[in-house]
Amino acid sequence: MKRALWLATFLLASALLADDGALQIANIGDLTLDSGESIRDCRIGYRTYGQLAPDRSNALVLTTWFAGTSAGLAAWTGPGRLFDSSRYFVIAIDALGDGVSSSPSNSSSQPAARFPRFTIRDMVRSQYTLLTRELKLDHVYAVAGLSMGGMQSLQWAVAYPDYMSRVISIVGTPKQTSYDLMLWKSELSVLESMGGTPDGASRAMNAVADIQGMGLWTPAYIAEHTKPDSVDAAIQTHRDALRKIDPYDYASQLRAMIAQDIYRDFGGSPETAAKAIRAKLFIAVSLQDHMVQPAPARELARLTKAESMTMTSDCGHLATGCERETLEREVKRFLAAK
Amino acid sequence: MKRALWLATFLLASALLADDGALQIANIGDLTLDSGESIRDCRIGYRTYGQLAPDRSNALVLTTWFAGTSAGLAAWTGPGRLFDSSRYFVIAIDALGDGVSSSPSNSSSQPAARFPRFTIRDMVRSQYTLLTRELKLDHVYAVAGLSMGGMQSLQWAVAYPDYMSRVISIVGTPKQTSYDLMLWKSELSVLESMGGTPDGASRAMNAVADIQGMGLWTPAYIAEHTKPDSVDAAIQTHRDALRKIDPYDYASQLRAMIAQDIYRDFGGSPETAAKAIRAKLFIAVSLQDHMVQPAPARELARLTKAESMTMTSDCGHLATGCERETLEREVKRFLAAK
Repeated sequence: MKRALWLATFLLASALLADDGALQIANIGDLTLDSGESIRDCRIGYRTYGQLAPDRSNALVLTTWFAGTSAGLAAWTGPGRLFDSSRYFVIAIDALGDGVSSSPSNSSSQPAARFPRFTIRDMVRSQYTLLTRELKLDHVYAVAGLSMGGMQSLQWAVAYPDYMSRVISIVGTPKQTSYDLMLWKSELSVLESMGGTPDGASRAMNAVADIQGMGLWTPAYIAEHTKPDSVDAAIQTHRDALRKIDPYDYASQLRAMIAQDIYRDFGGSPETAAKAIRAKLFIAVSLQDHMVQPAPARELARLTKAESMTMTSDCGHLATGCERETLEREVKRFLAAK
Repeated sequence: MKRALWLATFLLASALLADDGALQIANIGDLTLDSGESIRDCRIGYRTYGQLAPDRSNALVLTTWFAGTSAGLAAWTGPGRLFDSSRYFVIAIDALGDGVSSSPSNSSSQPAARFPRFTIRDMVRSQYTLLTRELKLDHVYAVAGLSMGGMQSLQWAVAYPDYMSRVISIVGTPKQTSYDLMLWKSELSVLESMGGTPDGASRAMNAVADIQGMGLWTPAYIAEHTKPDSVDAAIQTHRDALRKIDPYDYASQLRAMIAQDIYRDFGGSPETAAKAIRAKLFIAVSLQDHMVQPAPARELARLTKAESMTMTSDCGHLATGCERETLEREVKRFLAAK
């Protein structure tokens, strides 16, 4: 009898989890953007993991990183994982411009250069529409993200302050420093100046991959862990990874990051914005991050008395991998705490 | 009488110093390169400061940094300066490919892409020829350089071990790490893939300037000292500086750095190479250098029991500016010590 019950439970759980992580696409209609333009028939991709509690109290929204998709978040969620789908109903949402949600590469009415420019704020607006209108959620427990996902989650904190109880930003930032801007603008400039022909676009993406590949870790980490005679292979790996990404999509998200500043609606004042935030914040930064500068996120953590975590390894932006164990423990603790 | 003597001395000194720093060009004939090819009618630019002592014991050779010329070294030498021309007969020599010495941009018989590829070792060979054949110096007191100048001075230490008593490398390196290679190769790839037309070359140099501008300081230093709304001006400054440089010249020196490894003639062994070095070494590195990784220079300092200095500010490669006072004191002390 016990065995039969166990088996039934197992089969039921398997059935419920069978759709876990399957890509779903919602059409949220025309999306009006910060610029005044609209994305027509805006489609938003998402994947869910775990089950929504009967009292609908356990939804956890995950936002995607730059040039990544909801599929890439699969490694961060699942039963027992950092964003634990046995406790939370995890909703991983594809950001605008990621090639899954509406993007220059997949829009038939506004293709390529004709796709309107959107902001991080627009990404968040599209997610809010999906959650409230399609998924009928009038509140979620948490919004979380890594890197550009952290930029989105911090934008959530000021855009819809009552919509979630907790906000998690991991190697994200509330606004771009001059160095972040130099990095994104250097890539955008290459794409804008070399594109035009398919061959030019391909060469531009190679150059972008080279720049991006240098910023993921610290120079010291790369110098120590990659042998000089493996450098061409390492460069090729980065290029191969980016080759799958449409240059117009990549540029569209670059522009969104370049324009990002969650303080803009608060007269540029971090203090005023901090007062508007009502969710509990968890802010993790990597001190030697070469892709997303940690200073603005640290300042926001100070102003909001957020729980924070400073990764100090020489892994740079990818300290999220090197210090994953500590990060996982801290995030789980933050989410579980009353 | 006293006044007359003073005046005479002053006039004499002025006359002797009048030529200080004037560009001179020597034709050292055909220069055979590591590759087996030759630079035909090789011309080497140089400038001298101060006076050669009667016993010819005070010559100090300065080598140029990447994409710089002997004119750029003027700020580092002169009476009382770091390389003190009131004590030393300073000979600042233009490296091959810098647009003053023989380069793709100024060769009539081997212009642009037809200029043969040369190495850091070839630069040093050209300098040795200039010093011994044109300037009739069979020994110099010291060879010194910053950045790519340090790469040349360390190459001097193994190529002509008895030719100088002291070698100074400031933010230079004996060989490129994987990170250095990623940096130089990313720039070279942009130049090779975008060049061809004048417009393409100009856009390529812009992209290269953007990459180079990010690596001169640490990201944290840039984020702190440049305001986000000044970033376009900062980018433009870097682009304007590089606009004066010929893309073929720039690429030729990139290739020289990419191939650099002073251990190559010693079976790749730093230990064997270290044993061949007879000059006293002074090695200064910047711990957070994002342009020339400090690890290989630190290893060489350890193996040779060199005097060394580690700059620890967050200024990165340009710690030579931020920590100039200490650097100047240490270099002067090293040069003056018995």
